Amino acid sequence: MQTKSPVIIDLKFDQEQVAAALKGAFADREVINLVHPANRNRDLSGIDYAVVWKPGADLFSRAKDLKVVFSGGAGVDHVLTLPGLPDVPLVRFVDETLTTRMSEWVVMQCLLHLRQHQAYEAQREKRIWRELAQPEAKDLTVGIMGFGVLGQDSARKLKTLGFNVIGWSKSGRKVEGFETFDEAGLDAFLGRTDILVGLLPLTPETKGIYNTGLFTRLSRRGPFGAPVFINAGRGGSQVEADIVASLNDGTLHGASLDVFEQEPLPLESPFWGMDKVFMTPHASAASDVAALFRHVAAQIERLESGRPLEHLVDRSAGY
Amino acid sequence: MQTKSPVIIDLKFDQEQVAAALKGAFADREVINLVHPANRNRDLSGIDYAVVWKPGADLFSRAKDLKVVFSGGAGVDHVLTLPGLPDVPLVRFVDETLTTRMSEWVVMQCLLHLRQHQAYEAQREKRIWRELAQPEAKDLTVGIMGFGVLGQDSARKLKTLGFNVIGWSKSGRKVEGFETFDEAGLDAFLGRTDILVGLLPLTPETKGIYNTGLFTRLSRRGPFGAPVFINAGRGGSQVEADIVASLNDGTLHGASLDVFEQEPLPLESPFWGMDKVFMTPHASAASDVAALFRHVAAQIERLESGRPLEHLVDRSAGY
Ligand SMILES: NC(=O)c1ccc[n+]([C@@H]2O[C@H](COP(=O)([O-])OP(=O)(O)OC[C@H]3O[C@@H](n4cnc5c(N)ncnc54)[C@H](OP(=O)(O)O)[C@@H]3O)[C@@H](O)[C@H]2O)c1
Ligand SMILES: NC(=O)c1ccc[n+]([C@@H]2O[C@H](COP(=O)([O-])OP(=O)(O)OC[C@H]3O[C@@H](n4cnc5c(N)ncnc54)[C@H](OP(=O)(O)O)[C@@H]3O)[C@@H](O)[C@H]2O)c1
Repeated sequence: MQTKSPVIIDLKFDQEQVAAALKGAFADREVINLVHPANRNRDLSGIDYAVVWKPGADLFSRAKDLKVVFSGGAGVDHVLTLPGLPDVPLVRFVDETLTTRMSEWVVMQCLLHLRQHQAYEAQREKRIWRELAQPEAKDLTVGIMGFGVLGQDSARKLKTLGFNVIGWSKSGRKVEGFETFDEAGLDAFLGRTDILVGLLPLTPETKGIYNTGLFTRLSRRGPFGAPVFINAGRGGSQVEADIVASLNDGTLHGASLDVFEQEPLPLESPFWGMDKVFMTPHASAASDVAALFRHVAAQIERLESGRPLEHLVDRSAGY
Repeated sequence: MQTKSPVIIDLKFDQEQVAAALKGAFADREVINLVHPANRNRDLSGIDYAVVWKPGADLFSRAKDLKVVFSGGAGVDHVLTLPGLPDVPLVRFVDETLTTRMSEWVVMQCLLHLRQHQAYEAQREKRIWRELAQPEAKDLTVGIMGFGVLGQDSARKLKTLGFNVIGWSKSGRKVEGFETFDEAGLDAFLGRTDILVGLLPLTPETKGIYNTGLFTRLSRRGPFGAPVFINAGRGGSQVEADIVASLNDGTLHGASLDVFEQEPLPLESPFWGMDKVFMTPHASAASDVAALFRHVAAQIERLESGRPLEHLVDRSAGY
């Protein structure tokens, strides 16, 4: 039996977590973790697989025989722009724990806005006991831009809570139980949406898509009189100056942001101090490294037993 | 055809909301809203129905022929202690919109604790960008005390989000899809519970049930090392001095309170200023007055067409 190809690990993650997750992972093949000094000058030719997130600049010239590249994250915008990325299948990270975590975050943010958490916190600061008129979930429509793995899971959970949910995607893909819109249906979709949830990949087409022009086309007939914007896709898809202006002039009622144009968010960003904004530091759906390695091992196992790889990235589409 | 009995309305709610909800309600019978001065000295004998919330002290002596009393709220602890309450069927308020709103609140509170909202807010105040180690819903068990209409609906929604959910009730009633415990199983139930959700009615048996003795029996094996207490049942079931002490000495990790021993919450309560506590002013599941009148009309229609009333209160049990 032929020896199985080693797998290269080049992940700019927390190295303690990577080391812990590698224990017991890839039991049947060698692991070459490039973080170890011993691997600094190692010959990487002839190796089939690499798992990467912000890899070393020379990785692809050293590992010149890669057959598959695995992205360490669900989004591949960082990977697709890597210099020297070989023209081989690129597999992105899809995993139930990541999906579940994202839906927790999305559902929580929608509920925070629905249940007027910020207004209640403001009252509390002044020790004011006052019940606010309270719409319920069914009085609002959540519109999800990017109706893929993450968008659809969030949609199902939001629907269970009682929200109306509609979806928008490039293809307008049909999803049982939901009304969906395609690129041409964007205006109709926005006009129905009281809470906009962004779960789009960052591509040339989605760069800067969340801007004032888009916000002004959202529904203003919802119970709060102005729409809410939530983004957990990529910060590059949002125009932050427009979000700030739209919150200040009432075009938007509130926002929740997990991703930013620049991360870490610069200290001088106005978002840190804006009451109308809930924010988290790109923490909505942390990649669980152990789950990443299980996913990579499962895909390698598929490939080596003659089955097709899953979660392949379409390079021309950019996701 | 005999004239239909009028219905007496004696609700200490927002009177604008009551008036608005009465438009179009009870189309087939007279409504006697005691808030109107014209009804002050009206003869109320011979009238079958009254809908009450904190009614006038003389209501039951004036309306001495009532056949059914309808509670304006889901909890009937206030009603059961009314002097002169006649020994006729007492119907409590059960309604989908109330149930849905309560579940929104419960799910949001569980997510706020799971997703470490308070810790992220504290970091944000200092403009710190740092991702925290993040357990997911399936790493925690939510134990719901009071597994009736509200408890079960919250349970189903929490389960969809990924939480483990168990239920505790007097009878240990079996509910498809959930492990349930009865009174004798309380210790086993508490020992499994990382997030305790209180949805009990206030009765002599449940008065002061949430106290240090109970908190110390909760699980400490959850990801945060100490349990969370959430209460949306009735404030009389909680010992607030114990909650404060348990939060301060680490017996509890956090809390969410919608109900209090005294409401409005006194200005000097420590809860106003405690970061570990999320709070709302008895607003988790506002009664929708229009829905209340629809529910009362539907029950009267059942009774008058010879069918049994629903949602009857068991006076000896107190709920
Ligand atoms: N904040 C975080 O921690 C975090 C974590 C994980 C992922 N993410 C981000 O979330 C994104 C989505 O993840 P996913 O797993 O749901 O991806 P996915 O399954 O590939 O879904 C992407 C969706 O976006 C749609 N789309 C792409 N380009 C579009 C365009 N130009 N116009 C309209 N629709 C477009 C796709 O349309 P079709 O259905 O027609 O293909 C699809 O519905 C990732 O790319 C990543 O950037 C963020
Ligand atoms: N904060 C708010 O805005 C708000 C709004 C609505 C209601 N509430 C409160 O929520 C409570 C629950 O409402 P619900 O509609 O779910 O009532 P429900 O359907 O009558 O359910 C009550 C549950 O509590 C259990 N229970 C009662 N006494 C018990 C005891 N001594 N020991 C153990 N279990 C006991 C019952 O056990 P069995 O199943 O064995 O009968 C049942 O499972 C109401 O009574 C009200 O006080 C609060």
